[in-house]
Amino acid sequence: MSSRIERVLEHMKGRGLSQMLVSDPKSIWYLTGVDVEPHERLFCLLIRENGKHVFFLNRLYNVKDTGFEEVWFSDTDDSIGMMADRVDGKVPLGIDKEWKAGFLIPLMERCPGLRTVLASDCVDDCRAVKDETEILLMKEASRINDEVNTLAAEYIREGMTEKEVAAFIDQAFLDRGCSGNSFSTIVSFGANAADPHHEPDDTRVREGDCVLIDMGCVWNRYCSDMTRTFFFRKADSFQTKIHDLVREANEKAESIIRPGVRFCEIDAAARDLITEAGYGEYFNHRLGHFIGQTDHEKGDVSSANERTAEPGMIFSIEPGIYLPGQFGVRVEDLVIVTEDGCELLNRADKHWRIIGQ
Amino acid sequence: MSSRIERVLEHMKGRGLSQMLVSDPKSIWYLTGVDVEPHERLFCLLIRENGKHVFFLNRLYNVKDTGFEEVWFSDTDDSIGMMADRVDGKVPLGIDKEWKAGFLIPLMERCPGLRTVLASDCVDDCRAVKDETEILLMKEASRINDEVNTLAAEYIREGMTEKEVAAFIDQAFLDRGCSGNSFSTIVSFGANAADPHHEPDDTRVREGDCVLIDMGCVWNRYCSDMTRTFFFRKADSFQTKIHDLVREANEKAESIIRPGVRFCEIDAAARDLITEAGYGEYFNHRLGHFIGQTDHEKGDVSSANERTAEPGMIFSIEPGIYLPGQFGVRVEDLVIVTEDGCELLNRADKHWRIIGQ
Repeated sequence: MSSRIERVLEHMKGRGLSQMLVSDPKSIWYLTGVDVEPHERLFCLLIRENGKHVFFLNRLYNVKDTGFEEVWFSDTDDSIGMMADRVDGKVPLGIDKEWKAGFLIPLMERCPGLRTVLASDCVDDCRAVKDETEILLMKEASRINDEVNTLAAEYIREGMTEKEVAAFIDQAFLDRGCSGNSFSTIVSFGANAADPHHEPDDTRVREGDCVLIDMGCVWNRYCSDMTRTFFFRKADSFQTKIHDLVREANEKAESIIRPGVRFCEIDAAARDLITEAGYGEYFNHRLGHFIGQTDHEKGDVSSANERTAEPGMIFSIEPGIYLPGQFGVRVEDLVIVTEDGCELLNRADKHWRIIGQ
Repeated sequence: MSSRIERVLEHMKGRGLSQMLVSDPKSIWYLTGVDVEPHERLFCLLIRENGKHVFFLNRLYNVKDTGFEEVWFSDTDDSIGMMADRVDGKVPLGIDKEWKAGFLIPLMERCPGLRTVLASDCVDDCRAVKDETEILLMKEASRINDEVNTLAAEYIREGMTEKEVAAFIDQAFLDRGCSGNSFSTIVSFGANAADPHHEPDDTRVREGDCVLIDMGCVWNRYCSDMTRTFFFRKADSFQTKIHDLVREANEKAESIIRPGVRFCEIDAAARDLITEAGYGEYFNHRLGHFIGQTDHEKGDVSSANERTAEPGMIFSIEPGIYLPGQFGVRVEDLVIVTEDGCELLNRADKHWRIIGQ
């Protein structure tokens, strides 16, 4: 893991930073192997160009021998003061995007004149490119996701509620050794699917409903995320036309992914297809997001992202069309950028399909 | 809910603030009834003394007719720029403790010279004093917690794992209509209980183990939180002595709670008893924390808190003694401050008890 810190230091150097506070517990684990869930308490790693990194640790954390300088405090200590003593007030201090104002503002007050710089990218750009171990874990998380998605589609029967289907999925993840969900499972029937973030409720499935399932598990800390949309017992030609369009947008985007392609181009590949068909206004979110230890990591596939794909990056491709009062369709895979293209982490069939028969 | 905003404005006035950004989704719901889970996206309410409050909303949120000015943006818009346009750069801007550096630092860059002030208390001090509706919900959450705690103690049998007991509790919450846990259930057997934040694992219960169960549910958005420590099949005199001491510390603290008492005095009441008995170093955390929509809300019962109790405040009283390599005991209730004392929200028996027979 020390090589990961070296990569962060290189990024910092590129930005002229000699010190940076990392507060995201997942970044800290990624860089050090130290695993803490700090809740509302202070938990930080100060990375310094001289290699003398400092851990700020509450005595409640079950942490031993980090291999770094350790500053220990209890709930009643002036922990921000202890941090201010270690920060160099004369040069800019990088801060990651997760650090809360409840710590940042007091630190700025304790170090008048200190210039703080948002420097998440120094860590997040490292996390965005997965190494071999991470890739294996993410492939397994997606393999489980494919398997459970297929089982869930077979499980749905007349009169079942969205909540029942979501509970089936959540339990199937646990049965396969996952530590849980990477996000709250979305199961949306019929018009509920027109809200991309609908929460499963007591709506019962009826003939002709679309069945949108967006799901993901956590396997050894790493996440999966996929969406498939089915139709219950029957589908009309408008529904299948919309589904075909969304799937084609998904496949179009995936077909152009390779190192050097800009993310805005990938977004446009899918979006243009949907817009040309007249449904652009009903595709109201970005095409995708990066993923790793959390379902949404830094980096997205959107019209605003001019950066380019690199081998080892893993992100979602998830076009959707949401027709208020009618139905919604989303088709989502995870993909990994390879040396000359991309590989899909999801293998489950994504053509429209009738279920419940 | 408009009266809640009025109370926040009074607090702001007391601190000389004419504008404040509220970012905690639970605070925003508390003040407006607007319920959004923004994940990594921007979601804020700008409260202004002139009563012209402004909502900053992503088009993905399923929000209608907030009754406030609404600034809508999509993922690719310059949302921080839109916010900078609405903030008055000439006077201090209050910020709540939850807002992340990923938004705060860019806003400071867009408003050079803007003075930011940590002003969470303006909202959090309102949230700390529960109104009648909130009290009813929290009492019901604790009633469910008592009921499930008692069932869990009856459920434990020889050879069961911590994970199995935790799963029983989690399911029992769902069966009673709770939306979930207020935190990850802690079930610790024997020496595992010496870590106050132990996570349930595959350890199996054995005769003579302590069984520490720290649990809470969420009922209509509001949380419960309680701990009881049992002994499996038998207990030796040292274990029961430690348990008696912890329970007495819990009861001692609860006996002095009334309006006007300082939180540090409440902490000291329990801590002194444990210290005098020679176990002070093994009680290594604060006595309690406030609770409401989240398990840990602003406000604690600790030696560092000089503030005084007020009617309607709800917090935990949870002394513990943690003996590394041996066992741990914690006894925790929620209490509400009344006009002339306090009322316990937990009624489950807290004397030591043998289970598994």
